[in-house]
Amino acid sequence: MPDSWLSKINWSDDGLVPVIAQEAGSGKVLMVAWMNREAVKLTAETGRVVYWSRSRKKLWRKGESSGHFQKVKDIYLDCDEDVLLLTVEQIGGIACHTGRHNCFFNKLENGQWVVNAPVIKDPKEIYHK
Amino acid sequence: MPDSWLSKINWSDDGLVPVIAQEAGSGKVLMVAWMNREAVKLTAETGRVVYWSRSRKKLWRKGESSGHFQKVKDIYLDCDEDVLLLTVEQIGGIACHTGRHNCFFNKLENGQWVVNAPVIKDPKEIYHK
Repeated sequence: MPDSWLSKINWSDDGLVPVIAQEAGSGKVLMVAWMNREAVKLTAETGRVVYWSRSRKKLWRKGESSGHFQKVKDIYLDCDEDVLLLTVEQIGGIACHTGRHNCFFNKLENGQWVVNAPVIKDPKEIYHK
Repeated sequence: MPDSWLSKINWSDDGLVPVIAQEAGSGKVLMVAWMNREAVKLTAETGRVVYWSRSRKKLWRKGESSGHFQKVKDIYLDCDEDVLLLTVEQIGGIACHTGRHNCFFNKLENGQWVVNAPVIKDPKEIYHK
């Protein structure tokens, strides 16, 4: 597969693009993370989501330590060509490092953030096997 | 409504937070834009989405020139507290400045970006009334 399509993406000054992962079946927005060019290429080629960790400054193969991989269904680019939207299958049903299904579990209710999603699995069990 | 909840948001160095607008009924991801503190506050208080335009450097009341307002249903904050997810009702059914339902209309197919959503209304008709 030629990779000229990668050049259409408007990368940020530090060579990254924000990525929304949306669950294919439920339509649930799971998380937002970043990719560099190599991560986007690997994600498209392998069908498994690879992000760029800005804190660790290295490729982050989602699920590499948790087993909670994301299988790519489709990849979309927005009108400004600076945000990617991926529809994915979330292996294990847990996308968030807190052990929840998705990362958007703080819901604004009457001027307060209320946690509205359960911890499915204790993060200690996920990351310290 | 007290606004101490605004302080939980991890604002970027330039005082902004990225915001995903997701259609409440369909689950479709409509667009991604930015808000500053005032925009988030106005959005929560008025129930109509107000972004911060980074290009025009001013508040951007979504729909102010197009009539395509966004009514807020719910507001979520992610685990890192640096991305907002809004479920919205998209008035007029058009969120994108290209006249499409949403902004993520470039779909990757066999190494090429293919436009996979129709223009519902000519942008000239939307913005030059």
